[in-house]
Order: sequence, then C-alpha cells, then structure tokens
Amino acid sequence: MNTGRVEIHAFESRLLKGNPAGDPHVRRVPVWLPPTYDASPSRRYPVIFVLTGFTGRGRMLLNDNPWSPSLDDRLDALVAKGCGEAIVVMPDCYTRFGGSQYVDSAATGAYQAHLVDELVPWADATFRTLASRDHRGVAGKSSGGFGAITLGMTRADVFGAIACHSGDMYFDYCYRPDIPKACSVLQEAGGTKAFLERFESKPQKGKDDFLALNILGMAACYSPDPAAELGVALPFDLGTGAFRDDVWARWLAFDPLLNLPKREAALRSLRLLFLDCGTKDEFHLHHGARLFARELAARGIAHTFEQYDDGHMNVSYRYDVSLPKLIAALGD
Amino acid sequence: MNTGRVEIHAFESRLLKGNPAGDPHVRRVPVWLPPTYDASPSRRYPVIFVLTGFTGRGRMLLNDNPWSPSLDDRLDALVAKGCGEAIVVMPDCYTRFGGSQYVDSAATGAYQAHLVDELVPWADATFRTLASRDHRGVAGKSSGGFGAITLGMTRADVFGAIACHSGDMYFDYCYRPDIPKACSVLQEAGGTKAFLERFESKPQKGKDDFLALNILGMAACYSPDPAAELGVALPFDLGTGAFRDDVWARWLAFDPLLNLPKREAALRSLRLLFLDCGTKDEFHLHHGARLFARELAARGIAHTFEQYDDGHMNVSYRYDVSLPKLIAALGD
Amino acid sequence: MNTGRVEIHAFESRLLKGNPAGDPHVRRVPVWLPPTYDASPSRRYPVIFVLTGFTGRGRMLLNDNPWSPSLDDRLDALVAKGCGEAIVVMPDCYTRFGGSQYVDSAATGAYQAHLVDELVPWADATFRTLASRDHRGVAGKSSGGFGAITLGMTRADVFGAIACHSGDMYFDYCYRPDIPKACSVLQEAGGTKAFLERFESKPQKGKDDFLALNILGMAACYSPDPAAELGVALPFDLGTGAFRDDVWARWLAFDPLLNLPKREAALRSLRLLFLDCGTKDEFHLHHGARLFARELAARGIAHTFEQYDDGHMNVSYRYDVSLPKLIAALGD
Amino acid sequence: MNTGRVEIHAFESRLLKGNPAGDPHVRRVPVWLPPTYDASPSRRYPVIFVLTGFTGRGRMLLNDNPWSPSLDDRLDALVAKGCGEAIVVMPDCYTRFGGSQYVDSAATGAYQAHLVDELVPWADATFRTLASRDHRGVAGKSSGGFGAITLGMTRADVFGAIACHSGDMYFDYCYRPDIPKACSVLQEAGGTKAFLERFESKPQKGKDDFLALNILGMAACYSPDPAAELGVALPFDLGTGAFRDDVWARWLAFDPLLNLPKREAALRSLRLLFLDCGTKDEFHLHHGARLFARELAARGIAHTFEQYDDGHMNVSYRYDVSLPKLIAALGD
Repeated sequence: MNTGRVEIHAFESRLLKGNPAGDPHVRRVPVWLPPTYDASPSRRYPVIFVLTGFTGRGRMLLNDNPWSPSLDDRLDALVAKGCGEAIVVMPDCYTRFGGSQYVDSAATGAYQAHLVDELVPWADATFRTLASRDHRGVAGKSSGGFGAITLGMTRADVFGAIACHSGDMYFDYCYRPDIPKACSVLQEAGGTKAFLERFESKPQKGKDDFLALNILGMAACYSPDPAAELGVALPFDLGTGAFRDDVWARWLAFDPLLNLPKREAALRSLRLLFLDCGTKDEFHLHHGARLFARELAARGIAHTFEQYDDGHMNVSYRYDVSLPKLIAALGD
Repeated sequence: MNTGRVEIHAFESRLLKGNPAGDPHVRRVPVWLPPTYDASPSRRYPVIFVLTGFTGRGRMLLNDNPWSPSLDDRLDALVAKGCGEAIVVMPDCYTRFGGSQYVDSAATGAYQAHLVDELVPWADATFRTLASRDHRGVAGKSSGGFGAITLGMTRADVFGAIACHSGDMYFDYCYRPDIPKACSVLQEAGGTKAFLERFESKPQKGKDDFLALNILGMAACYSPDPAAELGVALPFDLGTGAFRDDVWARWLAFDPLLNLPKREAALRSLRLLFLDCGTKDEFHLHHGARLFARELAARGIAHTFEQYDDGHMNVSYRYDVSLPKLIAALGD
Repeated sequence: MNTGRVEIHAFESRLLKGNPAGDPHVRRVPVWLPPTYDASPSRRYPVIFVLTGFTGRGRMLLNDNPWSPSLDDRLDALVAKGCGEAIVVMPDCYTRFGGSQYVDSAATGAYQAHLVDELVPWADATFRTLASRDHRGVAGKSSGGFGAITLGMTRADVFGAIACHSGDMYFDYCYRPDIPKACSVLQEAGGTKAFLERFESKPQKGKDDFLALNILGMAACYSPDPAAELGVALPFDLGTGAFRDDVWARWLAFDPLLNLPKREAALRSLRLLFLDCGTKDEFHLHHGARLFARELAARGIAHTFEQYDDGHMNVSYRYDVSLPKLIAALGD
Repeated sequence: MNTGRVEIHAFESRLLKGNPAGDPHVRRVPVWLPPTYDASPSRRYPVIFVLTGFTGRGRMLLNDNPWSPSLDDRLDALVAKGCGEAIVVMPDCYTRFGGSQYVDSAATGAYQAHLVDELVPWADATFRTLASRDHRGVAGKSSGGFGAITLGMTRADVFGAIACHSGDMYFDYCYRPDIPKACSVLQEAGGTKAFLERFESKPQKGKDDFLALNILGMAACYSPDPAAELGVALPFDLGTGAFRDDVWARWLAFDPLLNLPKREAALRSLRLLFLDCGTKDEFHLHHGARLFARELAARGIAHTFEQYDDGHMNVSYRYDVSLPKLIAALGD
C-alpha cells in the first residue's frame, strides 16, 4: 500500500510564550503528508486541522491501538479506498488544566490565536497547501468538536468546512450536571491550586479527579479571572458551595447552541457542516447535537447530521465518515 | 428487655379515595407503642410521624436487616438506654410514581392533607397521644426529610419539632443533574406512560430506571399538569430534549432552601429543628444542607446540624441521634 | 381477599444455646398460616420451611418492597389464584459470620440439627401440619437453595420435596474465584477477628467487605478448626496468601454437585426436585445448576429445571413458580 | 535536553510467515537509540527488549499521554538525570488473540523464537549493541512481565538481566477466577470463532469482552490444540461449562511460580532479577509476586522486589525504577 508519512515538527510559538498557565511554548505538531505528496512536487492539497479532545494533544492522534487505527493509518486506508488527499495538521493546544478549548483565555493563553494566526500561516508556508479558506477545514471530537464548530462559527473566514464529532454544546446538559460533584472535590482538596497539584502528583487518577479537572479546565477557558486563585473563577462558590449564576453566564457565552442564531451567516457559508453524536453519550451531548441540527434545519442551513448507537468514548472510527466528506468539500 | 410493640392498622382514607394515580386508598399504617404504654393506661405520650424516603412506605421501616435494626428494635434499644418514650406512626404515602413527597398534587393525590388532616386526628383519637402541636413531631430521611422540613415550614401549627435527615433541597444540585439522563431514558421508552409500564413489568430494575423514576416521580409531585400524559409535566421537552424553564420554576417553588426566607417565623417557632447530611451524599444534598444551616445561623434561628462522613444510603443509624432529641423536645 | 396471617414466635433453642459464635439462642421464627387455617380447625396442611440466603434470617422474607411482595403477601396472592394451602415456616439460622448454610459446624453451631431436630418437631407440635416426610418440604434461594438441596440429599427422611433457587453449588466456580480477593481483604484487616470486628462496626459496608464476609462465612460452615482464630480455617494461608488445597477439599465435601452421585437414592425419592438459576448469575451458579440438572437427567432422576434471563439478586418472584408445585407435590 | 531518537523498523519475520492465526509477518519494531549514539560512532551499548502487556505491541510504548511519558521521553528524562545509556527494542508480538505471551504456540506462532532467534540477532547486527548475554536484558509489564521472567528462567543464555512488572504468575489466582465468566461469554457467543469475530467487529468492546479475550488468548498460548476450533483448547467444556483439569494442567506448566524450583540455576545466574507488584492488583498478581519473592529469598537467590500501593493499570512510572537498575546491571 502506498502510504503517506508523518513529520513531527517542533513549533515555537510566539503567542504562547510566557503563557499564564506556565505551559511550554514549543509544541510538537505532527503533520500527515498524503501518499502522492513527495512524488508530486507541484501539487497542492487541501489542509485539515484535527483537534483532539480534552486531555489530548496532537501526537495522541497517532497513538497505537490494535483495534482503532491511528490517524495516519486511518488516512492511509481511506486514501487506498479512493478518498481524496489532504494535508492533516495535528495541533497541540494542551494546557496544565487539561486543555484550552481552542479559545483565547487569560488563564491559559491565546490558543485560538495560536491556531489561527500562527499554525495556519505556518502550514501554508511550510507545506504545499491550497492556501485559502475554501480549501481549509477543521475537525475534532469532544472538546475538539467544540473547537471545530466554534471556529466554523467565528472564523469562517479562515475555515471553509468543519466536522464536529460529539462536540461540547448545550452546556446546561453537558457540564452543569457535574458542577455539584466538582464543587465537593475541589472543596475537599482545599481549592483549585491544591487540587491541581494533587492531581498532577497522583500516579493513578480516579473518576472524580477527571470530573473535577474537566470543570476546572472549562472554567479556565470560559471564565478566567485574574483576581481568583490560578486566575480562574469557578461556577460555584468554593466557600458555601452555592452555584454562581454570574460565572455561569460567562460560560454560556461560549455555548455553540446558544450562539447559533447570531452566527447563522457564517454557518451558511461553510462548504461542509458535519456534526454527529452517540445516542448514549455519557455527557448527554446527543441532546445538544439534536437541538443544534434541528435549529439548522429550521433555518434551512445545509448540514450533515449522523447519530450512532454508542457513547462518548472510542469513537474515532467516525473519522472514516467525516474525513472523506471534508476532503471532498475542500477539494477543487 | 422491656419492649414496645407494633400494631399495623388498615387505614381507609377518604382523601385518597379515587386518587388520580390509581393507588389504593386503604393503607397499612404501623404504629409503635412504647414499652410502658399498656401498663400505664392513663399516660399520654408525644407522637412522632416518621416518613420514609422515595420508593418507601411505612412498613419498610420495620424491615429486617442484620446490621441495621428495624425502627421498632431501634426504639426499644433507645428507650432501654434512657431515651424518653413516644408513640411513633409510620404513614404510607407511597404512589405508583415512587412516592408523594408528602405534598398535595393533582397527579398523585392529596398526601399532605392525608397526613395532616386524616392521620394526625386519627392518631390522636386512637392512641393516647399528647394531642397538641407542641408534642407532635415529624422526622424522615431523603424524601421523608423533605417532607419533615416542608411540614415544619408550612404546617408548624401542626408539628412542633422536626428532624430532616439528608432531605431533598437545593433542587439545582440534587435533581437537576439527573434531568438530561432522565430525558434520554423517557425518550427511549416512548413517554411517561410507556416508561412506567415497562418499569413496573421489569423483574430487575436498573440504575437508569430508578434515576428516571425519581425525576418522573418528582414531576408528578411538583409539576402536575392535567393536559399532559399521566397528568405530569416534565422539566424537559420529550420531543426535542430541551430543558423547560417554566416547569423548573414550578419545582423550585417547593425547594426548602429557597422557601426558607418566607418561612422564617415557622422555623423559629419549632421546639427542635434538626437537620443532617452525609458529606459524600450521592445526590449532593450536603451542599443544600450546609446552605440551609448557614442561612438559619445568619438569621439566628436555633437548630442542630450534623454532618457525617458517609453518603445517602443506609443512614438510619442517624435516628439514634435525632429521635432522643425529638422526644426530649416534645416531652412535657 | 381472604388472607393468611403471620405469627412471629420466639423460639428458644436448646441446641443453639452457648453456640461457639456467640449468637443468640432465642430466635424469632415467623410462621405463615394459610387463609382457611382458623376457620377449618380440624384441617391439616403440608408444611414448607423457607430458608433465606446469606446475611438473611426468616423475618427478612416479610420485608416490604413496593415491587416485590413479601412472602406472606405472595402466598396470599398465590392462594387467591388457586394454589393449594400450606403452613410456611421461616427459620432464623443467621450467625455472626453472615449465615450457617444450614449445616452443623464447630465454628457456628448445630444449625442443621436446630432445623431438623428442633424446628420440625416444634412446627408439627404447634401447628396443624401433616406431620410426615411426604408432606414436608424445604425451599430456599442462594445459601437457602444450598440448604434445601443439601437437606433433600442428606435428610430425605425428613423432607419429601425441595425447591432450590440459584443454590450454591459447583464451588470451584461459585466461591473459588473470590478467594484471592478475600485473602487480600483479610490480610489487610489483620486476620479474621479483626476483619469481623471492623465489618460489624462499619455503618457502610462495601462490596469487598461482603465478598470477604462471604468467604469467611463459608469457611466457618465448611472448614471449622478449633485451633484457628475464631475457630475457622481459611482456604488460603493468611501469611503467605497461598491457596490451601487441604482446606479446599473440606469445602468440596459439601458441594451438592460433587455429592450427587452418592445421594442418588435420596434425590430419586423426592416428590418434587425443583431447581432453577439465572443465566447471568454473578456467582456463576448457572453452570452448577446446569451440570446438576444434566447429571439428574443422565441418571433418569425426575426433576424440574428452569432457567431465567436474570442474575442472582431480586429473584423472589420465582417463588411464584416453585411454591405451587411444592404445595401440589406435598398435598395429599 | 540532549535526547535519543526512535527509529521504527519494518521487520520481516521468516518465523512468523504463514503463522496459524493469520497475523502479519512484517512487524513495525521501534528502537530507541540513546542520546550519545550518533555522536559516538564506535561506542557500544547494552540492549534491552521491552515487552508490552496483553493487547499491546511495541509502538504502544511510544503512545502519548499528558501524565505518563512515552517510553522514549521517559528514557530521555532518565538519562538526563544520570542514568546509563542503552539501546531499547520494542518488539511487536501481538496476535489476533490479543497477544502471544512471548511463547511458541501452535495456535498463534513461534513468538519466543521470533524474539530470541530473529530480533536479538537482528538488533546485534543492526545497532551497536554489546552483543552478549551479559549486556542484554528484557523487561515488561503484565504479560510482558510474564515474558521477561519466563525468558529469564528458560533463556538465561540469551538474557542476563530481567525486570518483571506485575507479571502473570500464580495462574490459580490470576486467571482461574475469570474462567466461569469467560465460559459464559464464549457460550453465549457460540464458540471461540464466533466470539472473536464479534469482538473484532464491535466498535465498543465491553469489560466482559476483554475478560473473555484474555482467557481465550491465554488458551491460545498455553493450550493450543489442532483439533479444536481456532486450534485452541479451552480450560472448560464449552458444551457443559465444566472446568477441564487436563487443559488447566497444560496452563500450569507455564506458571513462573511453579517453574521456579526447576529454574533455580538460571535465576541465580541473572545479573539483575527485578520484580514488583501493586498491592491492589485487580488480577491478584501481588499474591504471586510475593510468593515468588519469598521462594527466591528462601533459596538465597539475589533479587529486588518492590511493592506499590496501586493496582494493575497505568504503572509505567515503575520503569523509572527498573530501567536504571537494568542498565547498570548490563553495563560493563
């Protein structure tokens, strides 16, 4: 089989240098170059940025698993079956809080800017991309799906097609149910800083640890607050345990479902708007995805919506569905 | 050991006759008569109504378990250790929906009225109670704790002391997190009626079944709606899955924590206001209990608040703490 | 509905007095008298002893549960549907170790003797039983099923029909898998005595606690050893953790499946030999039940074998199947 | 930081060509070359073969995870802290059955031979190894730990030092408890072939799927049988469910704990014999490890034994302990 190849680049980010969370500003960014890339030195290709979920970074897409091909193996197999070719970039927007949601935050850093203003031009300069919005896509799962759909809604000038797999949306359903438990865990730990340090030092992290990290991580992205410990305002009062409506309102400002109406033009402009969900999603994301698709339909916005009889984890097989569509939409 | 004895009475309720859920109007009501009751024919006793949690009814308090005494055995042991004596009534306010929350509802029936207007006078007429508010108490756990504190806030004319163990409150934390999942289960079942019939016919009921029954049961109590299937409006749209703020507002009208300010006088009038919680309550009820106690303290309302290092289940050992206090407060 | 009634007798056992585990020798024994009992003062009835599972005692069969009738309610409903009548005795053979397996053990006490030599004659003397082997049956679930089938195999002179629901058998499959974990728990606790004391003092007992209690309890019944702590030899070396083949051989001497060949005559003599299992039994008892039934069939021993699509817990609905058959087989 | 680098070689195996399970005979074998390798062209290094656990293959050791460094990152960090340098080879001995246990089997293939007779000479020929037994080690976790200790016991002529992390041993404790459940799963699937095909086609594999795969996989390695379906004799009769002592005896012939006495000379010859376990190992491997260490001590065989307060998963941090010792033992 004629296969593509992966280059792993060390990218030195100017925008992430000195980021508030103390994360490295040099990131390893894998790039998959398609099978014909080397032999066709004048050919240019669409480019797709694939965004990992929470606690992930680009290299994780290459992880080996006997029953779930790594992204490069998956792309090779797709091309072998007749799928078009594209360059695939796998950004690393991981932070100490577990992720960045691919947004700019005073608590984590300028990750959307890093992606859009640094990685996009770098990819165009470094590889033979078709360097325009109509040939540039973004895809991702979970937090990566949130990133993809958010970029489709706010930066449709940069990305012309998106695929959102089980993406975070309808925050009232996907995050809010975990807030009381996260509050208990963070109270018990003695605050955000103590929690994070304990988390990092534990060889074995438990279910509640991840639940709390998720809420803390989202707070770092959606409700940074320079006056608060670690620069993060939580959606509850650590002292009394009470829910904080004011902070929650800041989170909701990022909810793709709520933002849809005012982003209608951007969504309508996309060459592909793909979203899917598992009907047993443990974070209840199927409700958000259905409401989003229903709203798109009501507005006559073209889209593809798939539902699968599974949950939130181990769903990378769905890239076999979205990537060929994305590449087709981004090709010439 | 000199022990009390249990009589189980078949109580024919006029108020529950023809109740909308089709539940029986004749209920078996256990009554515990204390050790000296028969030998002291002129002595009168305080009376305590003990309310079971969701899916329970009075007789369940007598269930045998090798490591947790039944309520009658527990009372015998307490008296043997010097606790005062009281008559204890164990109402049956169970419904097809899993319970009644001891409130009046157009979907389930007039359970508060049954308790206050039927069982209280019946107990006073049938047993040698000290038949006045100052000698009458109510206690319960979980939904029974909700019942106790609600009666203390709304019917302090009838009950002079209450004990609320891990009682439902701060609905935003204790119920709301389960709504997305309950929505999924009820959608999959094909509605409330289909769900309930399937639930009843299953020999083995699973965790999600109980989660959904709990939300449906609360809806039956807090948001009845004659126009809806089974007479129950759900806090979400079964068709779209969307949360319903209007229905949720009806639930919140029953939240003891939110009702505290306007019930301050009643709470202040109680001879004992006892509440407790487990610090690892699976329904996050410790947050509500702490906020409630904090609010009481801020207003200078006398109360007893205990926290235990445990969860929501198997906590009847805490009656060993509350009952002696209740009996002491209700004695002459 | 014309119903039977329950009498709860305090039975003072001579055989259990001073039992080695320090358990009480006065036991509360519920007896269900059928609907016609009082009105037909000369009529005699078959008698059935119903044995509870591990951690149970007779009164537990009367426990209230909204979705699973107590044994008395169940019997009333069966008779109302045309089932024959019988007197039902609910022995209490509970011990500090969680149970007695209804066998005689130097570590727990003479529970088989208590049942056969005390309760049987007492029931015949106290109630209008048909006082002969052909009209006397025994039934039970789990450890109670083990008790029933063991009594059918060893005391067919006393019991003429048996029903074994998910009874302990094929010890290599039902107990042995839990031994490594039980060893870990008991090692960590610091021995059998320390474990048991800790167990008893814990308000909340966890899954591993019960697993270890189960193995310890079986050891108390199958491999008592006066020289060992608490008088119980464990099937593993507490010091090294190694499996002990010698102790295990003592357990196997109680395995109904292995004992079947030498008890063929007794089994053949039964008027009803009923056994069942759930096909997803968490203790893998379906394998034992199938092998037992297969062996019965191979030897041409009449029996009834039922398999249900469920697990080990909450299966008392199966008494609706076995009790009418038992009563029919024991009637005249 | 001066770092090593990874080469991933495609190794074409003559011994695995046409293997009975139909697995590929060309394997991707990562090799880590230490930091000084390229700059010191005449220097030779010890070589360590690191064996993955069940369901793993060499590349998996390079998988990215934010809280657990990949093996190459881990090695870089160790060397930076002063650890000696070595070449590290990561074999791929994965099979369709989930693994090979690094033994030769008529059902899977000649994996021990592949490792010892192909990969070892290839590594010596391809890289600047210190090409002798005294400078060659093998390490692994779980099934890889079994592989390491088995090679240390049977091929001490090839490997001079070993590290066994939570390695499979004391099969009566680590495998046997799962046999009843595996039997149920395989019966339900309709046999080994049907099970394996269903397993492979499931996007989401459950806990019981893995449990059954594990037992089937071990059977493929320990009890191949050309007459049986897929060439694998199971340690139970699929028809009746009964345990098969004859097959089990074949498994036990591979148990490192039982083989210790006759491999004493080999074990004594090792320059490092390192083993560890987690004290809460879900497969109960701490019992086996302790018994193994106890037996070594009793025989005066030098060894290092570590116990950790954790379970079976996510323990690669322990390579930080073993690798420096291994490299030191294998250095000149």
